[in-house]
Amino acid sequence: MGKQNELGVTPMSEDVSAWYNELVFKAELADRGPAKGTMVIRPYGYRIWELLQAQLDQRFKDTGHENAYFPLFIPQSYLQREAEHVEGFAPELAVVTHGGGKELEEPLVVRPTSETVIGEMYHRWISSYRDLPVLINAWNNVVRWELRPRIFLRTTEFLWQEGHTAHADEAEAMEETLRMFDVYAEFAENVAAIPMVKGEKTPGERFAGAKRTFTIEGLMRDGKALQSGTSHYLGTNFAEAFDITYQDRENQLRHVHTTSWGMSTRMIGAVILAHGDDQGLVLPPRLAPVQVAIVPIGRGEQAEAVRDKADELREKLTAQGIRVQVDDRDTSPGFRFNDLELKGVPLRVELGPRDLEAGQVLVAQRVGEVDERGRAVKETIGVDAFVAGVQERLDAYHDLLVARARAYRDEHSATADDLATFTEQVKVGFSYALHCGQPGCEDEIKAATAATPRCIPSDGAPEEGPCVRCGEPSTYGTRVAFARAY
Amino acid sequence: MGKQNELGVTPMSEDVSAWYNELVFKAELADRGPAKGTMVIRPYGYRIWELLQAQLDQRFKDTGHENAYFPLFIPQSYLQREAEHVEGFAPELAVVTHGGGKELEEPLVVRPTSETVIGEMYHRWISSYRDLPVLINAWNNVVRWELRPRIFLRTTEFLWQEGHTAHADEAEAMEETLRMFDVYAEFAENVAAIPMVKGEKTPGERFAGAKRTFTIEGLMRDGKALQSGTSHYLGTNFAEAFDITYQDRENQLRHVHTTSWGMSTRMIGAVILAHGDDQGLVLPPRLAPVQVAIVPIGRGEQAEAVRDKADELREKLTAQGIRVQVDDRDTSPGFRFNDLELKGVPLRVELGPRDLEAGQVLVAQRVGEVDERGRAVKETIGVDAFVAGVQERLDAYHDLLVARARAYRDEHSATADDLATFTEQVKVGFSYALHCGQPGCEDEIKAATAATPRCIPSDGAPEEGPCVRCGEPSTYGTRVAFARAY
Repeated sequence: MGKQNELGVTPMSEDVSAWYNELVFKAELADRGPAKGTMVIRPYGYRIWELLQAQLDQRFKDTGHENAYFPLFIPQSYLQREAEHVEGFAPELAVVTHGGGKELEEPLVVRPTSETVIGEMYHRWISSYRDLPVLINAWNNVVRWELRPRIFLRTTEFLWQEGHTAHADEAEAMEETLRMFDVYAEFAENVAAIPMVKGEKTPGERFAGAKRTFTIEGLMRDGKALQSGTSHYLGTNFAEAFDITYQDRENQLRHVHTTSWGMSTRMIGAVILAHGDDQGLVLPPRLAPVQVAIVPIGRGEQAEAVRDKADELREKLTAQGIRVQVDDRDTSPGFRFNDLELKGVPLRVELGPRDLEAGQVLVAQRVGEVDERGRAVKETIGVDAFVAGVQERLDAYHDLLVARARAYRDEHSATADDLATFTEQVKVGFSYALHCGQPGCEDEIKAATAATPRCIPSDGAPEEGPCVRCGEPSTYGTRVAFARAY
Repeated sequence: MGKQNELGVTPMSEDVSAWYNELVFKAELADRGPAKGTMVIRPYGYRIWELLQAQLDQRFKDTGHENAYFPLFIPQSYLQREAEHVEGFAPELAVVTHGGGKELEEPLVVRPTSETVIGEMYHRWISSYRDLPVLINAWNNVVRWELRPRIFLRTTEFLWQEGHTAHADEAEAMEETLRMFDVYAEFAENVAAIPMVKGEKTPGERFAGAKRTFTIEGLMRDGKALQSGTSHYLGTNFAEAFDITYQDRENQLRHVHTTSWGMSTRMIGAVILAHGDDQGLVLPPRLAPVQVAIVPIGRGEQAEAVRDKADELREKLTAQGIRVQVDDRDTSPGFRFNDLELKGVPLRVELGPRDLEAGQVLVAQRVGEVDERGRAVKETIGVDAFVAGVQERLDAYHDLLVARARAYRDEHSATADDLATFTEQVKVGFSYALHCGQPGCEDEIKAATAATPRCIPSDGAPEEGPCVRCGEPSTYGTRVAFARAY
């Protein structure tokens, strides 16, 4: 544990890993569960998840999807029906062997993902082209055994959504795969304020059972990439394994083409690691449980008048749909300021007796201009003007965070044409390099540098040449984005 | 399977059990999962759950609660810390013995409810009176092994919410217990349109580990009661088992007093069984995925004009916050009418070429006035008047369903002062009887009549006398509501 600041958290600039672990507890986002690798998401963290859910779910509904629920328990034999799928997930499974006081005839797997059980249901539900497409999403919990758990980033149990769709042909299924890929990237930037590198996974990094996997990769403030959402075209792999067929318009029996796509509580980890700083969390306003904190500052006789005014301001802001909290904890203003910064609250409004008389407030933005001593510049503004412009101010703050994250990412991205440059670059961010596409060569790069191919960027310029490591001719037709990753 | 109607469902009036099972599938509410006792909630059923969740969650937030998430897996030893709790739940547990390819040192229980794991967390989080009260709710899935599964009513896995609160003393905890009890009853009536019998459970029917359990009991259309929500005062039972203590204002170390309360997907079963009829589902409008279905009726040249008008009407209704669907399936109007009735859609709007010219629509209510042939009376009304009054109409329909359910319940409730009367009465509904309160006597009644004490009604008039079965002096000070139950 490094040197800690006033609130007991190691500064990010000293040790990102310690900072992250301490901050998650200190900001009351989450805690460790009693069973190894599990997490408890505390109200402050869960509220972020609720806000994320609501905004992502709206996008799913807007693109024609409906929610449903599939069972937690899957007969073990189901996973074995798709060879690559079981190979990928077998090492991570939790297995129920006893139920109702008896040993089960067939063990049940706790879902690590639901392609198999949904495959069985789609087999039952789909028979004609008239039943297609099936556009379903599920919000649930999944279990993948983790040996090196990290809250939000890698936990034995996590919350997520998994979309599962079935289509008449490859073209429609690919269109869906890319649509949801776009939804994730748009959501990540417009809600979580994280501009993503979008691209396709190399074969070695694909989802177990997928034909093609598309990913959005964010850059964290320690230079590591974080896979934040994936969308898979599964071809007819699961349709064949689960006999999901339909009669087409010509009465031909055909296999459906399926997709799946998911985003998880890992995204909360992305928000922490993409925006945070030495003072703690920096929450993007569209995910912040509290967007504006009002701190009444007044003693003795003045306290009540200030407090009343704070309540009045709270009501005005609430009426505008702003998530606001009056922080009247019985502590010094300085303690409250630090704590609100630690918690990443976008705007802090200070309200003292003199402000009251002048009809104004002091506004401090969590990230913004700082004075020569490194402290946030506070703006004095009339109460009414603040209320009238608060949504605009939050939107501008969102844009600022996006721009800051994009600038950070761009500063920490570079091309590399030789292994030495590559090796240095992946210590700080993305290295764009040509690659031969051989799995063995990917493995060598990982062993030597800890970096993996995060994706083949969708917007990569056409380029060919020798592989950055082995010198063999490149494949993919463009540079691959490599990085160390969570 | 009895005689089925046009849509392949046995009429309720012939066989409620067959009707229920067939309707759940036919209306596409749910399906059986591959693992025994599990269910798949299909989009139409899940949408009911989403609507229920949103309206119940708002009530939790309005009463000061925050949501959080606790782990699915609980170390087996945790359950054993509270003696009654483990005794109650042990026979229903699913146990994970293997994880990540290895046998676990300590098996993990899949949560049947979360008092124990939350007890451990509250032990960590609470230390001072300043930390109290803790008001947390969780939406999640739980597993209780079921030997006789029934979709929505008794499934091995179900979805629910579980509230868990901690308080400084008994008075506060009891106030919370009763507050949530009231929230459930109010919600059941004002959202699900089911007037509940409210009361306290007898000791034999309490939640395993509770000091007091309060329940809301609905009457289903087969005369059985359905426990629809419970609120428990847990005293210091879990606080002692998990060492949840706090320092009070006088620096005394005290145990907290805890509560828990839950409502589940079982409520969807209650809605089906409390309102349904021979034609299928009858959904209360505040939970109906589709509140208004518009059926365009027109052939050839007229089809397009009618369809355009239907879209226009849909947009007007959507703008008013109504959940509306245009049913333009390529089938006969009669088939669509039957299917919309089966699905329980509150209002059906028929729109034909002649209506178009006259600027009016035909409105049929799922439950309402019927003509001499038993068919719903359709009302002719101007389009604009319909749009202007649609919310009022839906509210009136809600009130009608409540009144109908209340009338049914009251007609199927009676007092009994002797066992013969009692035995007949519990075949059709609630029997209000004096009882001695002896567990053995409860057991005898159950063995003889299949009825159990559902609750000691909160609003029961004071009364004493001989026990309906054994003649010993009554206890509880009022009549007990007995019924057969799901």
